[in-house]
Amino acid sequence: MKLEMICTGEEVLSGQIVDTNAAWVANTLMELGIEMQHRVTVGDRMDDLVAAFQERSKHADVIIVNGGLGPTSDDMSALAMAKAKGEELVENVQWREHLEDWFTRNNRVMAKSNLKQAWLPASAVMVDNPVGTACGFRVKLNNAWLFFTPGVPFELKHMVTEQFIPFITEEFGVQEKSALEKLLTIGHGESSLADTLSEITLPAGIELGYRSSMPHIEIKIFARGDKAIRQLPDVTKQVKALLGCAVVAENRPTLAAEIHHRLYQSGFSLSVAESCTGGMITSQLIDFAGSSSYLHHGLVTYSNESKVKVLGVNPQILDDHGAVSIPTVEAMAQGVRGILDSDFALATSGIAGPDGGSDDKPVGTVAIALATKHGVYSQMVKLPKRSRQLVRSMSTAIAYDMLRRALLEEAVIVDYPSIPRFAK
Amino acid sequence: MKLEMICTGEEVLSGQIVDTNAAWVANTLMELGIEMQHRVTVGDRMDDLVAAFQERSKHADVIIVNGGLGPTSDDMSALAMAKAKGEELVENVQWREHLEDWFTRNNRVMAKSNLKQAWLPASAVMVDNPVGTACGFRVKLNNAWLFFTPGVPFELKHMVTEQFIPFITEEFGVQEKSALEKLLTIGHGESSLADTLSEITLPAGIELGYRSSMPHIEIKIFARGDKAIRQLPDVTKQVKALLGCAVVAENRPTLAAEIHHRLYQSGFSLSVAESCTGGMITSQLIDFAGSSSYLHHGLVTYSNESKVKVLGVNPQILDDHGAVSIPTVEAMAQGVRGILDSDFALATSGIAGPDGGSDDKPVGTVAIALATKHGVYSQMVKLPKRSRQLVRSMSTAIAYDMLRRALLEEAVIVDYPSIPRFAK
Repeated sequence: MKLEMICTGEEVLSGQIVDTNAAWVANTLMELGIEMQHRVTVGDRMDDLVAAFQERSKHADVIIVNGGLGPTSDDMSALAMAKAKGEELVENVQWREHLEDWFTRNNRVMAKSNLKQAWLPASAVMVDNPVGTACGFRVKLNNAWLFFTPGVPFELKHMVTEQFIPFITEEFGVQEKSALEKLLTIGHGESSLADTLSEITLPAGIELGYRSSMPHIEIKIFARGDKAIRQLPDVTKQVKALLGCAVVAENRPTLAAEIHHRLYQSGFSLSVAESCTGGMITSQLIDFAGSSSYLHHGLVTYSNESKVKVLGVNPQILDDHGAVSIPTVEAMAQGVRGILDSDFALATSGIAGPDGGSDDKPVGTVAIALATKHGVYSQMVKLPKRSRQLVRSMSTAIAYDMLRRALLEEAVIVDYPSIPRFAK
Repeated sequence: MKLEMICTGEEVLSGQIVDTNAAWVANTLMELGIEMQHRVTVGDRMDDLVAAFQERSKHADVIIVNGGLGPTSDDMSALAMAKAKGEELVENVQWREHLEDWFTRNNRVMAKSNLKQAWLPASAVMVDNPVGTACGFRVKLNNAWLFFTPGVPFELKHMVTEQFIPFITEEFGVQEKSALEKLLTIGHGESSLADTLSEITLPAGIELGYRSSMPHIEIKIFARGDKAIRQLPDVTKQVKALLGCAVVAENRPTLAAEIHHRLYQSGFSLSVAESCTGGMITSQLIDFAGSSSYLHHGLVTYSNESKVKVLGVNPQILDDHGAVSIPTVEAMAQGVRGILDSDFALATSGIAGPDGGSDDKPVGTVAIALATKHGVYSQMVKLPKRSRQLVRSMSTAIAYDMLRRALLEEAVIVDYPSIPRFAK
């Protein structure tokens, strides 16, 4: 089955919005083992839409079309499809009644423009949309089924999951079974990961893929077919053995999600004192509903005065060692932990750049500490030649990983690839 | 001039990465008055690349091709172009020597695979890339110039700015002069902005555009031609008059950038106490180098205990009014301001959801305060039916705007469209 996509909409074509719908669709289908082969993006111009439908339907088996189903004059996917096939628009009575019902139930008056959303090409099969006013539809043209979906991300996702995937599964036969294992790593670049893993002989049906979302690279181990699926755990084990401590989470989108999950389950409490990471450790956890159950507070003590006044860091330590130092960051972690006697506390202090570096402590020098009720762990890492943003996000990842390892009762300080440390 | 784009690369097509290059190119050219007309995204398959080059070169005048110029076997843009035109690859001696020089100067051994990057289609005109190892090139096929650019965002941006724009300007005649004014707004939806502004009669050559980056919508006022450019200030003034306090910044990408700029210039200091915004107010400022000159600290006092212990909020206030209340948020702002006697302090406390709401204070209730050396301003807003993320980012925007207005010595509390407030 040859799958393509046509994205419509001036704001996507002109870069007013980044096309996350296209990435989501391709990624979702890829995880089912169905590869996206081609994508066209066109604006709200009738001729371009008609040409794209006619041209691509000669090449593809299925084309998922996104956008242009709304009530305004810019929304012309249905009319363009009718023209491409040389047929009329016909009112779909079922959807018109559904719309009338919906507006009545919600005590709203339906704008006349909404009625347009019930007019579909004559040969179209209507596709239900229980979460919006735009129904989808599908039409066969030349070689291909064109499957029309709404542009609103939430509605698109619903329709792809509930309607599109079942449709192609039925129409093109059950896809071969597949399974996916995702490993989140830090410290390796993509080529160094590929080099390291090149010594594994992959069984037939198993493929490795990489997705970079700095400071992480995610490894996808993709298995197609029953035999490969049975071998997946063993391959995953080999990958993990080769990468060692560079693997920081399994089947989680981010390390913050891993930490949230573990803390939420554990009942332990956390406090955070941040300097160079500037609230990143705290705010990535607060992104998750439920974080209030374990997060006491996150104090971004950016100035030295704040470290002294709020965290109780001894000014002598700052004078003797500077703000970016092991003694300071340990005092920060112990200080913030002590305020509410939290189970764990993380602290960071570093030089995120682009200015502020010295010969001793160049830009990218970051001290990180984890305090527990029993002691404190710390390290000072070197993250040179990274942007301010990347210094901060890598420091956040290392801090999270120290906590993750402590929660697992593993060694807290480890050697990540390509992240050197200062000697203590 | 009809401009199109061809994006290459399996990871873009398959959604492993979101195609921000495409959005950047379209947006950058749009701001020069040049509209993107069509975009094709293809993977690393020779036949698809050749077909796309041949097909689209019949329609466009210029096609910017992105990606596939690297040293690996996946990088096949040059070879595909040569095949599409029916010619050979030829080594570009100038670029080979440049590569050899570059590796020698950087004390590195050139991998043999890098040499591939000097092989271009026979009729290609080489395009310099002073910031990477992949040169660009351009080739005429059918009706179009195909202009090949590197996939690395930094290199792409450099080449578009330094080479592509001058090329099309010269090749297709000087583009008409244009100018752009950007206004950042909060509170309005896109359709309500368009409704409000529909009463302005736009002079010929002036267009309005909208870009949604929640919690903001940016209005672009685009003027094409000398006469329209002269009228731009007047139109901008009319737009601002109609929108009133909904306009929160001019020609800044974000409200955080506006606040950073104003605080950095002013010499005033800031402290922040956040609850529901969870560090967002602080971390968006710390994204900017130089923020340490004005930011004392940002304390995310997520638990009640932390509000008492760290900020000195009277426990009786929390008992009497609850954490999400005007008295609590005022005490938080005054407390955090007092620790280091900052000039200004912002505080937030709210219910970001999805749980935690009550009849009195449903999800989306957020109290926000600004403390100065002379007093405290506060309001409690209603942000219902928004996601957790949007409640937090809108609260952050309102807090920033209170500070912005105070810095301008304007009224601190104003009525934004569609953001109702609780009576005090």
